[in-house]
Amino acid sequence: MLKPNSICILGTGKLARHLSEKLISEGIQSLFLWGRNSEKTAKMAAELGMQHLASPDHFPENSAAIIAVSDHAIAEVAQLFKGKSAYMIHLSGTQAISALDGCAAHTGVLWPNQSFTPGNSIVWKNVPMSVEASDDEARTWLLQLTALLEGPVAWLSGDQRKQLHLAAVAANNFVNHLMVLTEEWCIAKGLDFQFLMPMVEQSVKRLREVSPSKTQTGPASRNDQVVIAQHVALLKDFPEFSEVYALLSKQIAERSTRA
Amino acid sequence: MLKPNSICILGTGKLARHLSEKLISEGIQSLFLWGRNSEKTAKMAAELGMQHLASPDHFPENSAAIIAVSDHAIAEVAQLFKGKSAYMIHLSGTQAISALDGCAAHTGVLWPNQSFTPGNSIVWKNVPMSVEASDDEARTWLLQLTALLEGPVAWLSGDQRKQLHLAAVAANNFVNHLMVLTEEWCIAKGLDFQFLMPMVEQSVKRLREVSPSKTQTGPASRNDQVVIAQHVALLKDFPEFSEVYALLSKQIAERSTRA
Repeated sequence: MLKPNSICILGTGKLARHLSEKLISEGIQSLFLWGRNSEKTAKMAAELGMQHLASPDHFPENSAAIIAVSDHAIAEVAQLFKGKSAYMIHLSGTQAISALDGCAAHTGVLWPNQSFTPGNSIVWKNVPMSVEASDDEARTWLLQLTALLEGPVAWLSGDQRKQLHLAAVAANNFVNHLMVLTEEWCIAKGLDFQFLMPMVEQSVKRLREVSPSKTQTGPASRNDQVVIAQHVALLKDFPEFSEVYALLSKQIAERSTRA
Repeated sequence: MLKPNSICILGTGKLARHLSEKLISEGIQSLFLWGRNSEKTAKMAAELGMQHLASPDHFPENSAAIIAVSDHAIAEVAQLFKGKSAYMIHLSGTQAISALDGCAAHTGVLWPNQSFTPGNSIVWKNVPMSVEASDDEARTWLLQLTALLEGPVAWLSGDQRKQLHLAAVAANNFVNHLMVLTEEWCIAKGLDFQFLMPMVEQSVKRLREVSPSKTQTGPASRNDQVVIAQHVALLKDFPEFSEVYALLSKQIAERSTRA
């Protein structure tokens, strides 16, 4: 049983929506939605069956505030709701807990390690959460909240969360960029990008069982300079892909030579 | 019904083993195994229940030859078995069909788009195959062989196969290298690399439905130079990761600015 059981979601983006839907499905009755664009917020609140919080001045008593806005706006929204609630958390991997200093007695961070992009359906029990609390009361509340969301929990310091965020950038955003370059290449050459998916899925599945340092294959790992030179020649009209190819092949080859 | 139904697998590596196991499970009775190391080959043949082909001189009549050795050894093995069989194929993404010229009347290539690393279990019906044939008879035989293996088939020219191989290097080897850097970082910082897996799996799953060009997130895609600078500072003792971070962030930011 979450206590306080009333929650105000501050923000109307993708994460605010996903989180609201989950809290509704978990039976949280007293849910409010606030956003800077009042019209948009009223519409979204009606759509989800939440109460519309038209102004910080109407903040309900004994409600916790969850700031679900973009990273650069967190401090500003925290100031806007300063002193309105005893509990206030944000959901960012990059922002410190100190962004909420002085705005509530008990503050915290709950960073869901998931990419909330359009078209993603979120299964919260599979979403690991990095959490941080200012004190025992915030910790207790976050324990109840994360139990409701069901995913695995790691209590990390702000520094550790930043380090994990950096890891997530590489494992998610950078991998996605490689896929962007690969898809463009396939389209340019009339090849079916989807043809690669079984291999990619298999390799990602393997990461659960074997360290990637043990499974490298391909021309660079064999230091096969003939094939590498052919690839570089093929890429001459693809400057971005070409730069990425050169750097990553160099690093992979150096590692396999060292090993 | 595969005709010729007798097959000699030339090679004793991981792909040779996976392919032999599949052909056995599909009921191919007449299966021979040859390898340069006769003792090792005899042992593997006995283990799998295949016949050991001790020398090219004993090549059985009406048998097809499948060369399953590493790329640089294909031409040499093809010469060793020159004129022994009517059908000869190799399994490489990088080598041309011409590596088999003059060695058999009907030649071909069957490149399975999968990473045959230790610990991978191979579900052949999920393995797409790029195939090429020298003539109609080779094509007919390859059609039967790929039907047996069950995976999706693309008939590609040698040039297209090389282009697809380059795409596979990026989507598989380069992604794996990012994971190597990320895992090392996590270990160095006492973070659990596995914590990232649900996000990675979700993002890879999404590639089946949405173009990666539509789903980029993270600090570079927001051109958030504050967070990027923090990450670069964190990476100062990780020169490889640092180089990769700088290049990929630059490309992602440039694209998001252009968009």
